[in-house]
Amino acid sequence: MTAPSFPPAAFQSFDERADPANVAPRLRALRAAMAEAKIDAFLIPRADAHRGESVPPGEARLLYITGFTGSAGLAIVGPDKAGLFVDSRYTLQAPAQTDTALVDIHQWLGAGYSPELADYIPRGGTLAYDPWLHTPAEVRALTTLLAEHCTLVPHANLVDAIWADRPGAPVSAIEFLGHNRAGRPAADKIAAIQSSLVTDKADAAVLSLPESICWLLNMRGRDVPNTPVVLGFAIVPSAGQPTLYLDPAKITDGLTASLKGVAGVASSAELTTDLAALGKAGKAVLIDPATAPAAIATSLTDAGARLVEKADPVLLPKAIKNQAELAGMREAHHFDGVALAKFLAWFDDKAPKGGLTEIGIVTALEAFRRQEESCVDASFDTISGAGPNGAIVHYRVTSKTDRALNPGELMLVDSGAQYLSGTTDITRTLSTGATMFEQRDRFTRVLKGMIAISLARFPQGTSGAQLDILARQFLWQDGVTYNHGTGHGVGAYLGVHEGPVGISPRYTIPLQAGNVLSNEPGYYQAGAYGIRIENLIVVRDSAFVGYLEFETLTLAPIDKRLIEPGLLSPAERSWLNAYHQRVYDEIGPRLDAATKTWLKTATAAL
Amino acid sequence: MTAPSFPPAAFQSFDERADPANVAPRLRALRAAMAEAKIDAFLIPRADAHRGESVPPGEARLLYITGFTGSAGLAIVGPDKAGLFVDSRYTLQAPAQTDTALVDIHQWLGAGYSPELADYIPRGGTLAYDPWLHTPAEVRALTTLLAEHCTLVPHANLVDAIWADRPGAPVSAIEFLGHNRAGRPAADKIAAIQSSLVTDKADAAVLSLPESICWLLNMRGRDVPNTPVVLGFAIVPSAGQPTLYLDPAKITDGLTASLKGVAGVASSAELTTDLAALGKAGKAVLIDPATAPAAIATSLTDAGARLVEKADPVLLPKAIKNQAELAGMREAHHFDGVALAKFLAWFDDKAPKGGLTEIGIVTALEAFRRQEESCVDASFDTISGAGPNGAIVHYRVTSKTDRALNPGELMLVDSGAQYLSGTTDITRTLSTGATMFEQRDRFTRVLKGMIAISLARFPQGTSGAQLDILARQFLWQDGVTYNHGTGHGVGAYLGVHEGPVGISPRYTIPLQAGNVLSNEPGYYQAGAYGIRIENLIVVRDSAFVGYLEFETLTLAPIDKRLIEPGLLSPAERSWLNAYHQRVYDEIGPRLDAATKTWLKTATAAL
Repeated sequence: MTAPSFPPAAFQSFDERADPANVAPRLRALRAAMAEAKIDAFLIPRADAHRGESVPPGEARLLYITGFTGSAGLAIVGPDKAGLFVDSRYTLQAPAQTDTALVDIHQWLGAGYSPELADYIPRGGTLAYDPWLHTPAEVRALTTLLAEHCTLVPHANLVDAIWADRPGAPVSAIEFLGHNRAGRPAADKIAAIQSSLVTDKADAAVLSLPESICWLLNMRGRDVPNTPVVLGFAIVPSAGQPTLYLDPAKITDGLTASLKGVAGVASSAELTTDLAALGKAGKAVLIDPATAPAAIATSLTDAGARLVEKADPVLLPKAIKNQAELAGMREAHHFDGVALAKFLAWFDDKAPKGGLTEIGIVTALEAFRRQEESCVDASFDTISGAGPNGAIVHYRVTSKTDRALNPGELMLVDSGAQYLSGTTDITRTLSTGATMFEQRDRFTRVLKGMIAISLARFPQGTSGAQLDILARQFLWQDGVTYNHGTGHGVGAYLGVHEGPVGISPRYTIPLQAGNVLSNEPGYYQAGAYGIRIENLIVVRDSAFVGYLEFETLTLAPIDKRLIEPGLLSPAERSWLNAYHQRVYDEIGPRLDAATKTWLKTATAAL
Repeated sequence: MTAPSFPPAAFQSFDERADPANVAPRLRALRAAMAEAKIDAFLIPRADAHRGESVPPGEARLLYITGFTGSAGLAIVGPDKAGLFVDSRYTLQAPAQTDTALVDIHQWLGAGYSPELADYIPRGGTLAYDPWLHTPAEVRALTTLLAEHCTLVPHANLVDAIWADRPGAPVSAIEFLGHNRAGRPAADKIAAIQSSLVTDKADAAVLSLPESICWLLNMRGRDVPNTPVVLGFAIVPSAGQPTLYLDPAKITDGLTASLKGVAGVASSAELTTDLAALGKAGKAVLIDPATAPAAIATSLTDAGARLVEKADPVLLPKAIKNQAELAGMREAHHFDGVALAKFLAWFDDKAPKGGLTEIGIVTALEAFRRQEESCVDASFDTISGAGPNGAIVHYRVTSKTDRALNPGELMLVDSGAQYLSGTTDITRTLSTGATMFEQRDRFTRVLKGMIAISLARFPQGTSGAQLDILARQFLWQDGVTYNHGTGHGVGAYLGVHEGPVGISPRYTIPLQAGNVLSNEPGYYQAGAYGIRIENLIVVRDSAFVGYLEFETLTLAPIDKRLIEPGLLSPAERSWLNAYHQRVYDEIGPRLDAATKTWLKTATAAL
């Protein structure tokens, strides 16, 4: 078993491992395995059993078969045709990475499955799926969609069967957070979850999201890039100790000792046995139908368990950061503020002279962040968009697309880091020379929206769905908008994208003090430039009883050269000046003299 | 059969017909009828079969039994106890109107039924309900709530059985709107509904909401106060002519002739027969489970029909007013603006001198409105709240509660009228002398919210749920809010409260050009004063493709003496000044010289 080391020497690779030449032989091998198993079509999703944004190399089955490296997608391989369903982010990338003579690309919008799946399955045939890679909700949706067309069957993964040199499961060092970082003993968290299980009349819950398990046990790892988690499963009974199921290579005496009195540890091979035992005992078991592998649901029900289908009970408490987690997040943002100040000063010097490239910019920013030794990873692959590339919302630079930044173009940099104390995510849009009025007008409307969220005060019970319009109103006045949410939840030294709260019409769960969110309105002029301004914010109690407000975590200057001052109200201008003063006061003392001088100018009152 | 004439000599009565002495004998008679029918408990809702806000006298069963006159509520009469469930608006009024020795009052919050209903039903007993007065959704909710406690059975109404002098169904004159008022032939509307039935795979729809039927057939009546409708039912087949079911006294040769080629007319006694015929033919029939009587659903299913449970198909198209309806609404608001200018000028003269009362104010306003002969009714009972009564959101003055308005107090007047051309609804909060800073601060924040909605621009697909926060944000900044929606839909010479769009978190349906809404933020300081400012607005296309905005319909000055000018932004101030200029330009020429002079001052730029 190979054990990839994470994080790699550099946080981010700019190579896309796609080689379309591999597609033909691999499809051939897969179809041979399908024929042997009497299966007419096989599904290959991008997700692994843990539904993470990053998957370890051995779980990159979609990439292995199709060459497609995107972070979401689904392939179906039929007897003589194959289809790859990707969302609008990937409609250009997917055809460039796969062999389009053998794989059709379909744009697949939003939730649910495309009826075009049926085109790849002979009528009356058998469609197989790996039940560890699909949720019960997905299996139900597929069954409804294809009920009259074919039979859906769970099956061992046929990609794994033909993948000779498939990498083994990742085995990274596991760390436990001390009380100064976690702020709350694992036993307390477990007791709270157990109390919610009693309310839900469930005898146990099965957890399959690594962020949930790691939060519950105050544990972190480096099994995948960007999100510091240990991949595994857990069963939390309504009374007694949880059991953590891990790859045997991860189970050491040290680990078992660290969890003593909190949780038992077992090999992942024992999970299915233990699920069956719950079933045989007739237990009611909570699973999250939106995220649990279907294999877990069927192991339980086949053995006689009753399922309680509810959202993962860790999601809501995990989103409410305690004082230790918030102190860590504030520290991480001080580290990030220092790195950003150095980077922005460097950028301001270099960009107007020409010669920078998107990759060069990512590399420099990463180097500034790595000067702080507690910076252990990027929290996601940096979006580094020069000029028109800034208008591609989910742009990710590769060695093939790397573009020079020409003086006068706008530069959009959306990046974040994992510090041992917390997670960051920041976007700044930067001027590199003369700007047009339209750019300053749009930038200022985006900024006004970002400030409106920053200044919002709202009663308990208010959701991010309600706040969203505050960020959009100024763009809407001019008949434009941005096609993404205003904000997502952010973990504390965990996933940079975290549910269940956020700021967009889909987030109807009330915000609570301790929720950390991004605040990132934008504007994108296709083929010309992109603008986004993003700070992280945390919900806190206001001076008015029953009313909440935001504290801003992110500390980095906003490019004043892109502001059209006449569009700011006095209140907005005073927010900006106070924010910049705070950036200077809190970050300035940590900088060398030259950078501090630069920061003084960058944060001077407007 | 008695035929009450509507509207009455005055639009509004200030008498509450409650006499608690009636409760004991009527409960005794009802219990005797229950015993004879072998029923342990009987439900008495406020609603009639048509779910209107106003019910005709013969449908006022809740009032007949309990004495309670509120517009929502439910009584349950058990073998020896009775309970009356009312919402927070009526927790003071209900005990004052009923015999509290015989009837317990319960505060009943929001949707669904209180589990306390079970206290009035012997375990294992029989609870009867009139299936014409409860919807299928309500029957399902009751069945779920009481499944383990008792048996729920439909039964002929026992209140009617004991109500010797029960008034007959109302019979008012029926009018048909010409093309200049309806803007669209009934046949066109029917064809559109039929096309939606085909999409919904329904062979017919049963309509039970009088507003829906009257809109569809371009018909109006005066069967109930405030809403100019004809009470009846209709069956709309997916092809062919609808049938209108009416009380036989309403069916005249003239009516049948007016509907010739559009709809057939039948006696309401034939409805059940025709529903059964649809069932026997195995038809799929659309009913709205939230508004249709359960009796209609069971008549259909008992005979073999398949129900298609969907929202009343008229609700959405009815909410999109066409150009003729909007022209009528604008005309109605010109009439209303003239009446309001006269009223406000009168009020400004009288109020500071003292001697006005809440009823006197209602009477004066109604008199000014009635000077326009096309004003045929109030659109709801005026809310006339002097001083602290202004803080009672749903206050309705009666001869018992009538209060003098003392100079210096704030006066809140929320009123509306039915003109033959359209429906109005306006709230103004008026100064009568010196004001406190707190009152001006709150008034200005309410006004800023009202202006924010007035100035909003938003893309197609945006709902009132999204806009709501724009009206609340300035109050929230100070840690206060109002406990009602920001706006409701308004009919065109129909109901003043109309679904399915509005402005509050519950209205998630996208707004469309032609929707008429109220815009009425407020602030209520219990025991001291109430503030609300309400204009009607209509959604229209903006100059930006794909973006909508509002046009204001209401034309009446907003009391500038209550504005704290320093709290207004330049954009808000310029909205207010332009609005006042428009009020003067459009209403001024219709006024006598003295009122015009008053209006000149009232609308002078701030």
